[in-house]
Amino acid sequence: MRRSWWGWGWEEHALTPQQRDKLGAAVTGRLGAEVVARRPPALDAVPLPPPRFSPPPALADLCADDAYTRASHTYGKSYRDVVRAFSGDLSPAPSFVAFPANEAEVAALLDWCASAGAPAVPFGGGSSVVGGVELEGAVCIDLTRMDRVLEVDRASRAARIEAGALGPVLEDQLRAEGYTLRHYPQSFEFSTLGGWLATRSGGHYATNQTHIDDFVESMRVVTPAGVVESRRLPGSGAGPSPDRLFLGSEGILGVITEAWMRVQDRPVFKASAAVHFRTFDAGATAARAIAQAALFPANCRLLDPGEALIAAGVDDGSALLVLGFESADHPVDAWMARAVELCQEAGGALPEGVRISTDAGAGARDGAAGEWRNSFLRAPYTRDALVAMSVIVETFETATTWDRFPALHASVVDTVNQALKDVCGGGWITCRFTHVYPDGPAPYFSVFAPGRPGSELAMWAEIKAAASEALLAAGGTITHHHAVGRDHRPWYDRQRPDLFAGALRAAKRTFDPAGVLNPGVLIDP
Amino acid sequence: MRRSWWGWGWEEHALTPQQRDKLGAAVTGRLGAEVVARRPPALDAVPLPPPRFSPPPALADLCADDAYTRASHTYGKSYRDVVRAFSGDLSPAPSFVAFPANEAEVAALLDWCASAGAPAVPFGGGSSVVGGVELEGAVCIDLTRMDRVLEVDRASRAARIEAGALGPVLEDQLRAEGYTLRHYPQSFEFSTLGGWLATRSGGHYATNQTHIDDFVESMRVVTPAGVVESRRLPGSGAGPSPDRLFLGSEGILGVITEAWMRVQDRPVFKASAAVHFRTFDAGATAARAIAQAALFPANCRLLDPGEALIAAGVDDGSALLVLGFESADHPVDAWMARAVELCQEAGGALPEGVRISTDAGAGARDGAAGEWRNSFLRAPYTRDALVAMSVIVETFETATTWDRFPALHASVVDTVNQALKDVCGGGWITCRFTHVYPDGPAPYFSVFAPGRPGSELAMWAEIKAAASEALLAAGGTITHHHAVGRDHRPWYDRQRPDLFAGALRAAKRTFDPAGVLNPGVLIDP
Repeated sequence: MRRSWWGWGWEEHALTPQQRDKLGAAVTGRLGAEVVARRPPALDAVPLPPPRFSPPPALADLCADDAYTRASHTYGKSYRDVVRAFSGDLSPAPSFVAFPANEAEVAALLDWCASAGAPAVPFGGGSSVVGGVELEGAVCIDLTRMDRVLEVDRASRAARIEAGALGPVLEDQLRAEGYTLRHYPQSFEFSTLGGWLATRSGGHYATNQTHIDDFVESMRVVTPAGVVESRRLPGSGAGPSPDRLFLGSEGILGVITEAWMRVQDRPVFKASAAVHFRTFDAGATAARAIAQAALFPANCRLLDPGEALIAAGVDDGSALLVLGFESADHPVDAWMARAVELCQEAGGALPEGVRISTDAGAGARDGAAGEWRNSFLRAPYTRDALVAMSVIVETFETATTWDRFPALHASVVDTVNQALKDVCGGGWITCRFTHVYPDGPAPYFSVFAPGRPGSELAMWAEIKAAASEALLAAGGTITHHHAVGRDHRPWYDRQRPDLFAGALRAAKRTFDPAGVLNPGVLIDP
Repeated sequence: MRRSWWGWGWEEHALTPQQRDKLGAAVTGRLGAEVVARRPPALDAVPLPPPRFSPPPALADLCADDAYTRASHTYGKSYRDVVRAFSGDLSPAPSFVAFPANEAEVAALLDWCASAGAPAVPFGGGSSVVGGVELEGAVCIDLTRMDRVLEVDRASRAARIEAGALGPVLEDQLRAEGYTLRHYPQSFEFSTLGGWLATRSGGHYATNQTHIDDFVESMRVVTPAGVVESRRLPGSGAGPSPDRLFLGSEGILGVITEAWMRVQDRPVFKASAAVHFRTFDAGATAARAIAQAALFPANCRLLDPGEALIAAGVDDGSALLVLGFESADHPVDAWMARAVELCQEAGGALPEGVRISTDAGAGARDGAAGEWRNSFLRAPYTRDALVAMSVIVETFETATTWDRFPALHASVVDTVNQALKDVCGGGWITCRFTHVYPDGPAPYFSVFAPGRPGSELAMWAEIKAAASEALLAAGGTITHHHAVGRDHRPWYDRQRPDLFAGALRAAKRTFDPAGVLNPGVLIDP
C-alpha cells in the first residue's frame, strides 16, 4: 500500500467508486445542485519548487528529495492542505526530507541545519491540521524510522517508546506484551507518539486523562543545544515540570526522540450505551452530571442531532450520548448503572439498553456506538472525497467552562451559519463533545458547505476566521487538542498571556540559539 | 490565639504539660537515656539582625518590622528552622514584612523592590520545610490579607480564590456554598492556596489527582514585568501550559495572587478500611494493584509496621493500609469491594471490617484510620516538643517507579540507619506511602534519633545529606510534594536537566528582569 501524496491515509483505502457515487448523490440531494467529482492531478504533472538546500554529503544517505517524498511531506492534512495539494499547488515543499534512525543522526541533522541556517521541521505522521509541519524550503525531519518499543517495565506498567512510532506500530509491539497505550486520536493510523506529545494530542479517554500529557513519565528531547532528559517518575513536585514545557512545544524547542509512557492492561470488562436525548442541551446536562460524579467513563461523546444522524443513523432528531466504561480489572456494571441513572434524570432514553461484554474486541463495535466509531475512523477519507466535489469541510474544536458553554455554542453556530450564508449561500454546522471535564466540555464542530471550484480556499478562510473569532470571544480555547501550528497563530497570540510568549521565546533561545526549529509556530523569533 | 514565632501552629495548641511528660517518658524509654525538655527562649531575649531595608514611606502602612512579625517570618517550619529559632538564632530575619491587601499593592511592592535592589520573598502560611521562604534582610511579602473566595461558578463547579487564603479560611467560605476544595496537606491549617500552587503541594487525594496542579483552571500572577493571567479553561492543547510554568515556581517568577480552582461537592458516601498486612512489601503489592485497577481511592496510605504502631496503635507488627473511598454522588461499595478483594489477594486482613457511612463527618474519624488521621494532624506539634528534648526529627519524601521501589526503600533505610548509628549512636526510620500511582508510590520517611544538645543541626545535616544522596542514587525525586527551596538545591540541581535550568533562568529574566524574586530558590541567577 502507498500513502496518498495529496490526501489522507492509504491510497488503497480511499472511497471506492461506489462509495464516491453514493456520497455524491447524497451531497447533490442535500445541496440541491449537481456536484461533480474531479480527479487529483498526477504527481508528475505537479511542479515542485527548486530546493533551497541540498542534503549535506555526510548525511546524504538519510535524505531523500524525490518528488513523491517531497510532495508527501509538503503539508499536513487540514482541509486547506488537501485542497492545495489536490489543486496541484506544492509550492511550500521542503527542500529535502531526512529519515534519521537514531538520536545521533537527529543531532547531526540539527547541527548541520544550525550551521547552514536551514530551518528544520520535525515531522511524525504528517497529520497536522493546523499548518504545524509546513515550511517552504525547510529540512523536513521525518522520525518514523525511530519506531521501536525499547523497553517494558511490567512492575510499573510503563514502556520506553521511540517517538517516531505510528499508532499501529507501537500498539502492535505493546500488544505482544499484553499492554496498550490506548491513545486513539482520529489520526491514530497516521500519527506518531512524538507528534502526539508535541501537540498535546487528545485521545481515547473522554474523561479524567484526556490528553497524551497525562501518560508521560519522562521524555528525551534532542535540542540544538544538547539532549534534555527528564527523570522517570510517577509524580514529582520538584520545580516546574520539564515535561510540561515540551508537551505542546510543537517542534520549536527540540525533537522529541523517546518517552517513557504509562501503558494499560488491555480492557476486558466493557459496558456501553447509546443514550438518546430530545435536545443537545439535555444531553449536555447528563454529560456534565457524569463528569462531575467522577465516574470516569472511557467514552462520553455527545453528538448533536445532526451528528447523530450522519454518524450513527439516529433519524428521530435525538442527540446521542455514546457512553462507555471499560476496565482490565473489574466489571463496570455499577459505574454504568449510575451513569445511566444520571442520564435518565436528564431525560435520556436507552432504546438499545446497555451492552455488557467481557470481550476486548466487542461492545464498542456494535450498535449505534459502533456505527459512530466506524464513521469516525473513515471521516478523513470521506473528507477527501468531498474535497474532490468542491465541498467545503472544516472541523474545529475548543473547550470551555460549563457556565460559558451555552452562549459559546449559540454564538459559534449563529456566526458560522451567517458566514456560510454570506460566503456559500448555505451549509451545515454540527457539534459533538469529544471530551468532558467536571468544569466544562470540549466541543468539536464540523462544517459542510458548497464551494465554488477554484474559490474554496478563500471561502474556507472566511468561515474559519469567523468561527475562530467566535470561539475566542466566547471564552473558548483556539484548540483543545488539534494544536496551534501556523494556522491558529492569530488567535493563539491573543489567548495566551503576552509575557508567557516572552518566556517561551527566551526558553527557545536556550535550546535553539540559531532559531532553526519550526520557525513561525507558536511564537515569532 | 497567637501563632508561635518559633514552632508550628498556635501557641495554645502546643502539647500540654501532661502530653509533654508522657512523650518525654516514651522517648526516655525508647532511647534508654533520660531526656530533658528545654524551654524556648523569650522572644525579647533573642537578638534580631538590623534591617537592610526600611519600608518605603508610600507603602509603610502595609509593612511591619516589629520583633514578633520579623521573627515569625524568619523561617519556614522544617526541623532545621525550628531548631534554629528554638536556640535563639534569628539571623536570617527579613528586613520587614509587607501585608498587601490587593494586586496593586503587590505590584507596588515589587516595583519598589526592583528599584531598591531589595530581594522579595513571597510568603503564604510560612509552612515551607525546604528553606523556601528564608532570606536574610529580604522584604517578606505576606499574602494572607488576600484571602477571599471572590466568585463561585456553580455550573462548572469552580471558584476564584485569592492566593493568600489559608486552608481553613477558604474552606469556611466554600462550605457556605456547599463546596470544598478538599486539598488537605498536613500543613492545611497554616498554608495558603498560593503556597500550595507555588510548591505543587500534595493533598488529600492519594490517587489520580494528587497535586494541587490538577485542580487549577487558571491563575493570575503578578510579576515585576506585569500581570500574567491564563484563560479559564477545563482543558487545553494550545501550546505548553502557562499554568504549568508557574506551578512549582516557588516564588521566583512572580507572586500568585488568585486562581480559578475546580472545587468539589462535599462527599457524602464514604467507605473506609484498615487493612493489615504481615509485611510492608505485601501491602505495597496491594497498593500497586489498587492503583493499577483505576479504582481511584481517596485514601490509600500504606504505613510500615513502625508507623502503624506509632500512628495507629497497631502493635502486632503489621503494616497497615488505610483505604478510603468517597463520593458526593453515589455509594462507593462496589469500589471498596474490589479494593478489598485486591488486598485479600495480597494477603491483607480486615479485623475491623469495612466502615460504610453516608455522613460527611464520620468514617475517617473512627477506628485505626481515625487514629492515624489525628496523629497526622498533630504530628508537627509533637515534632516541636521533640525538638525541645533534643531529639532529631526529619521527614523526607520522594516518588519512584514500582520497579525501583524495593531497592530504593532498602537503600534509603540502610543508608539512614548507618548514618544514624554513626552520627547519633542509633535511631529509627519508618516509611509510609502518601500517594500511589499506577507506575509507582510516593514514599514518605520519618526519622527519629537522639541528638546532643547544641549539636543537633550538624547531626541532622549529615543524616539529611545521606538520605538525599540515597534517594537520588536510587532513582527517586528529591521531592514529591515538599518542594525544592534552598535546602534541596544540591540534589535538585543534579536531578533536573541542565538545559531546563537554563530555560527557567531565561524565563525568569523575562518576568523578573532585576532578579529580585526569591533569589537562590530553584536556580542561581
